[in-house]
Amino acid sequence: MSKQLTLYTARSCPYAQRVEIALAEVGANFTRFEVDLQNKPVWYAPQVNPASKVPAAAYGGPEVPPDQPSPESVKIAESLVLLEFVADLHPESPLLPKDPVQRAKARFFIDAISKIPSSWHAFMSRGESPDALIGSLESIQNLLSEGKEFAVGDEFTTADAAIAPFLARIATTLGNDIGVFAEGEGKKVYEAIWKSPKFVKLQKYYENVTARESFQKTWNEQLIKDRMSARFASKRAT
Amino acid sequence: MSKQLTLYTARSCPYAQRVEIALAEVGANFTRFEVDLQNKPVWYAPQVNPASKVPAAAYGGPEVPPDQPSPESVKIAESLVLLEFVADLHPESPLLPKDPVQRAKARFFIDAISKIPSSWHAFMSRGESPDALIGSLESIQNLLSEGKEFAVGDEFTTADAAIAPFLARIATTLGNDIGVFAEGEGKKVYEAIWKSPKFVKLQKYYENVTARESFQKTWNEQLIKDRMSARFASKRAT
Ligand SMILES: [Ca+2]
Repeated sequence: MSKQLTLYTARSCPYAQRVEIALAEVGANFTRFEVDLQNKPVWYAPQVNPASKVPAAAYGGPEVPPDQPSPESVKIAESLVLLEFVADLHPESPLLPKDPVQRAKARFFIDAISKIPSSWHAFMSRGESPDALIGSLESIQNLLSEGKEFAVGDEFTTADAAIAPFLARIATTLGNDIGVFAEGEGKKVYEAIWKSPKFVKLQKYYENVTARESFQKTWNEQLIKDRMSARFASKRAT
Repeated sequence: MSKQLTLYTARSCPYAQRVEIALAEVGANFTRFEVDLQNKPVWYAPQVNPASKVPAAAYGGPEVPPDQPSPESVKIAESLVLLEFVADLHPESPLLPKDPVQRAKARFFIDAISKIPSSWHAFMSRGESPDALIGSLESIQNLLSEGKEFAVGDEFTTADAAIAPFLARIATTLGNDIGVFAEGEGKKVYEAIWKSPKFVKLQKYYENVTARESFQKTWNEQLIKDRMSARFASKRAT
């Protein structure tokens, strides 16, 4: 008999999407609560996550409405902690391989991803050189196994769940030229990554992870495009 | 029949000590190779860890001298990846609890530790305010369970292995007034943390983890004191 799981999440948040992908992969039963990040419910920080961020989970305790979390459930935060937690709750699933070496490879890949968000924001939000972003994606590409569908083999793992939300947001913002950089600069970087022969292994990998049902179910491109366009609308360098 | 494990490590490195503690906890058989961090062997980066850092492990493959690593062994880097790897190789050990919630707590604790090194270096190496360091240790203290010996309960876990090397180096440098700050400032911060009633829970926890055999076997206080004194000898603010 499995315990209740409530996920506090937000469609726009790449960290939250990681966990939604993992839950979709294992076919978990869970209650989804969309947190309005611009206007967080007053009970959220004190009763769910003191850091006031998504994703967070409430696990166990009595069945309660998600906006009335029980003090008896365990609260768990941090997307990477939650990815491991989902895998631990479903040891039969291939979300984390059983082989210790394969598990280490998935975790090493996830560790390598940690440079992507800051290098993306350096270009998009601060108008710095795109070289750090391009370099971080190149090192990710170097970790991909030749001829394998996913990050550490032919099974979709936590490594893929961790990176897909970021790759998709980077492609969407660059491809739509969204950022503080001068007009056309985002599209140029998009071409340099998504259309260049240098990145063909990453492009193929990107196709594989974004075609995955767990990704498609948890991704709303229009929403990301609209939100990010609105955020950067008045900030373009001229 | 278990595979060979070689750990590339260095006595001075807190990240490497994490893994040595974990290996001691599970009673692993392994070959220890001390890497001279000031003068790394030329084969180390190309044949063991392209990032040229310790710790790194070579796992499996034929029995070879550690300074002649086999291309047939799997190379694994990153201290936190290695902590999980050691636990995965020894599922019978309490190094990672079996309960998914306890595992999540250990991993959340480890995630929270990630702010400690930069806040310590801000004070010791750059002479910035010690407030970030004191604040990060306070949030760690808040995560400790009342009346429990270790980070997530009465068993020693990866969470304890991850934090102990940092706490010990912070206590040793502050207590010996080692850093770029003005004379006496390090000792003041040491007193504010290790002698103040505000930090009594952290102090008790510090005693517990540093008294552990796995810590004692892998810790050389004199070496840390000498190395760090030498590093900061000519850098004191006047
Ligand atoms: Ca983190």
